[in-house]
Amino acid sequence: PETEEQRLCTMIPGDGIGPEISDAVMKIFDAAGAPISWEERNVTAMKGPGGKWTIPIEAQDSINKNKVGLKGPLGTPIAAGHPSMNLLLRKTFDLYANVRPCVSLEGYKTPYDGVNLVTIRENTEGEYSGIEHAIVDGVVQSIKLITEEASRKVAEFAFDYARKNSRKNVTVVHKANIMRMTDGLFLRCCRETAEKNRDIKFNEMYLDTVCLNIVQDPTQFDVLVMPNLYGDILSDLCAGLIGGLGVTPSGNIGAHGTALFESVHGTAPDIAGKDLANPTALLLSAIMMLRHLGKMNYAGRIEQACFDAIKDKTSRTKDLGGDATCSKFTDEVCHRVKD
Amino acid sequence: PETEEQRLCTMIPGDGIGPEISDAVMKIFDAAGAPISWEERNVTAMKGPGGKWTIPIEAQDSINKNKVGLKGPLGTPIAAGHPSMNLLLRKTFDLYANVRPCVSLEGYKTPYDGVNLVTIRENTEGEYSGIEHAIVDGVVQSIKLITEEASRKVAEFAFDYARKNSRKNVTVVHKANIMRMTDGLFLRCCRETAEKNRDIKFNEMYLDTVCLNIVQDPTQFDVLVMPNLYGDILSDLCAGLIGGLGVTPSGNIGAHGTALFESVHGTAPDIAGKDLANPTALLLSAIMMLRHLGKMNYAGRIEQACFDAIKDKTSRTKDLGGDATCSKFTDEVCHRVKD
Ligand SMILES: CC(C)[C@H](C(=O)O)[C@@H](O)C(=O)O
Ligand SMILES: CC(C)[C@H](C(=O)O)[C@@H](O)C(=O)O
Repeated sequence: PETEEQRLCTMIPGDGIGPEISDAVMKIFDAAGAPISWEERNVTAMKGPGGKWTIPIEAQDSINKNKVGLKGPLGTPIAAGHPSMNLLLRKTFDLYANVRPCVSLEGYKTPYDGVNLVTIRENTEGEYSGIEHAIVDGVVQSIKLITEEASRKVAEFAFDYARKNSRKNVTVVHKANIMRMTDGLFLRCCRETAEKNRDIKFNEMYLDTVCLNIVQDPTQFDVLVMPNLYGDILSDLCAGLIGGLGVTPSGNIGAHGTALFESVHGTAPDIAGKDLANPTALLLSAIMMLRHLGKMNYAGRIEQACFDAIKDKTSRTKDLGGDATCSKFTDEVCHRVKD
Repeated sequence: PETEEQRLCTMIPGDGIGPEISDAVMKIFDAAGAPISWEERNVTAMKGPGGKWTIPIEAQDSINKNKVGLKGPLGTPIAAGHPSMNLLLRKTFDLYANVRPCVSLEGYKTPYDGVNLVTIRENTEGEYSGIEHAIVDGVVQSIKLITEEASRKVAEFAFDYARKNSRKNVTVVHKANIMRMTDGLFLRCCRETAEKNRDIKFNEMYLDTVCLNIVQDPTQFDVLVMPNLYGDILSDLCAGLIGGLGVTPSGNIGAHGTALFESVHGTAPDIAGKDLANPTALLLSAIMMLRHLGKMNYAGRIEQACFDAIKDKTSRTKDLGGDATCSKFTDEVCHRVKD
C-alpha cells in the first residue's frame, strides 16, 4: 500500500569498479520492480567561477532537482589543491549527517556476532575544515572547527534517527578531556539535545574508550554520534567487525530531504572491469535510499534477497571468501527478489 | 653478566588503584632481586611561578636526577583550566615518543591470536597542543600543531626501535588526504627517515584503513608510527584485541635516556582499595623500564613469571575473568620469579 509513483534519483556511478556495481544495483532494482528511475551524472572535479573547484553543474542541477541520489566510489585525486570529490559533495549540499549502519550479516561468520549499531558523523566541519597554514618553516597547523549550529543539527539528527529506527541509546563519542573547547562544544550540544529527548537513553564516552570497548564487545553499542574524523575512524573500524567495506552502506543526509547514499569503499582499480567487485555496499546504500523515500516494502524485499544470496556461500564474491563474479552475485539477488 | 649495580628510579604510585598496584610491582621486583630501588614521589597539580600549572618540584627533581621512572594512573581533574597531569609530565620532560607494545598473552584467549605489534605515538604536540579559541559565539577551533622537529624525532625513534627490537616493518598512520599540511609534514618526515633506514621496510596507510584492517587481521602489523591522537586511539583499540588496558604496558621516551613508564588504564575508583586490581599493566611497564636500563635478564625472568601466572586460570584477576585478588596474583608471580 505504499506509493508506486516512479521516483527520479540521481545516479553517480563513479570511478574504477563504480560502473559495474551501479549497473548491478540498477539491474536488481529493475528485477524487484522498484519504482525508481535513474538520472546518470558524472562527477569529475572542475574549476568553477573564481578558480574554485566545484561539482560539474549538470550533476549539481540533478541533485538539486531530485534531492536524492546514489553514488559509487570516486577516486581521490593526488594533485595538491585538488579536493576530494566525496568531501566536496558533502559540503556543497550541506549533507551534515553521515549515517553508517553496521549490522552483522546473517550466515557470514566473523569473530563478532550480533553487531547492530549505527555511527552518525558530523559531515561538514571539524578536522575536515580544510583550513591549514604554515607558521614558520617546519611548523604547520590544521584547524579543527566546531560550530554550535552543525553540532546541534547532527545531535538532533541522531536522536530523531534513534527514535524513528526504534533504537534506545545514543552515545556521544569525544575527546573533550583534550580538546576542551571544540569537543567540549560538541558534547554540550549533545547533552542539551539529550535533555529534550528523554525517551532515548544518552551517555558519553571518550573515543579511545569506545575503540577499546567496541573490539571487546560491539553489541553494547547502539547509536554513536561524533565529530567528523572520529566518525571516519569508527565507521571503518565497525565495518571491519562485520566483513569490511564491501558490505556496509552509508548515507549523507542534509536538510529538506536532500540525501546522497554511497558505498564507502574505494575504486579498487586493481579489479575494475574484471567483474570481481562486490556490489553489496552500494546495494545496501540504495536500500537505505529506498527507506529514506518511504518505500519500505521494496527496501525490505531487496534487502532480504541480498542477505539470502550472501548466506548461500556459492554466490559470495571474493572479498567474502567466495569465487562468484559480480554478475553471478547480481543474478542470484535478481532471482531471489523476483520470487 | 649484566650490571648488578643498584639503580634508583622514581616511583609515582598515582591515584585510585595506583598505590596497590605499585606495591605489587615493588614486591615482585624484590622477590626477583631486581637491582632497582625506588624514590617515591607524589604528583598532584600545583601552580608554579606565574600561575602556570606545574609538576611538584620534588617530583621534577627526582625525575631529572634519576632520568627513569614508573608511574601509576593519575586522575584527570575535571575543573576547567586544570591540566591532565599525564600530559603535563609528557610535555615537561619532552617525552616525545610514546611506545605501547601489544602482544597476545599466551594462554589467554581472545578472538585474536598472535598479535604482536607496537604503536609509537608522537607525544608532545598534534591534537594535544592545547591551543584553542573561540572565533565568535558558537564557533570554536582547536589547533593541531605539527612540527618538523618533533615529527622527525619520533620517526627516527620508530626506526631505531624497530631495529633494536628485531622488527621488520614500520607503517606510518596518517590522514594526509584530509590534513594535507600537518599530516603531510608528518608523512614527509617519516618518508625521509625511511630513506635513511633501508634495512627496515616502510609503508603508509590511512588511519581509517588501519582501523578496518587491524580488526580483521592484526597480525599484518608490526611497528606503527603516528601523530598524537591517532596513537591514543589505536593503542586502546589494540589493547582491546588482547585483553584490555589491564595487560598493556607503555613507555614515554625522551632524550638522553629520560623515560617514564606507565600503565595506561585509569584510576578505577570503583575498585580502589579493595585488592581487586590487576597489576599486570604496571608490571609490564616496569619490565619495559628494566629493558630500557639494560637489565635484560631480570626483565625476561619477571616477564616469564607474569605470563606463567596469567596462564594459570586460578590466579587471574577479575578483569581477565578470574577471581584472584591483586595480592593473590602478586604472590603467584613472586613465587614463580623465585624459582
Ligand atoms: C575518501 C575519504 C576522503 C573519506 C573520508 O575521509 O571521509 C572516506 O574515508 C570516508 O569515510 O568517506
Ligand atoms: C588520560 C588521557 C589524557 C590520555 C590521553 O588522551 O593521551 C590517555 O588516554 C592515554 O592514552 O595516555
